[in-house]
Amino acid sequence: MRFTAEVKVMLKEGISDPQGQTIERALPALGYEGVGEVRVGKRIELKLDAGDIDEARAKVEDMCNRLLANPVIESFQVEVS
Amino acid sequence: MRFTAEVKVMLKEGISDPQGQTIERALPALGYEGVGEVRVGKRIELKLDAGDIDEARAKVEDMCNRLLANPVIESFQVEVS
Repeated sequence: MRFTAEVKVMLKEGISDPQGQTIERALPALGYEGVGEVRVGKRIELKLDAGDIDEARAKVEDMCNRLLANPVIESFQVEVS
Repeated sequence: MRFTAEVKVMLKEGISDPQGQTIERALPALGYEGVGEVRVGKRIELKLDAGDIDEARAKVEDMCNRLLANPVIESFQVEVS
């Protein structure tokens, strides 16, 4: 069966996020006040073959640990449908 | 009130996604077969002040058009809670 996976990769809490900080500093100059805690991560969509949804999820989590994310500084969430 | 927003920014269909293609080519070498249509985008989390949820959503969509996304080549989705 063919599954669709959505992977969200974000920097772990406590890891400095320069991209988010830059956006946060730029927003007031554009007239947006009261915006904070900006965090920037990755979002990956893919399709894959697997026997069932649990196998698909396990396969994608494995891919995250090995290629899609850096488990030292990033956390990831996998949604399969 | 304080709202949390999640922004998904993906390249529009038809726009070449070299990051996704690179991942797609790397996966078979790591032993993952049957994976395709890999697309890589951005995911932005932020908190903001607004009068109500509609105002919050409108404000974030406006930020996307002006700063967070490039509307020429990227599409975005905003979820506010």
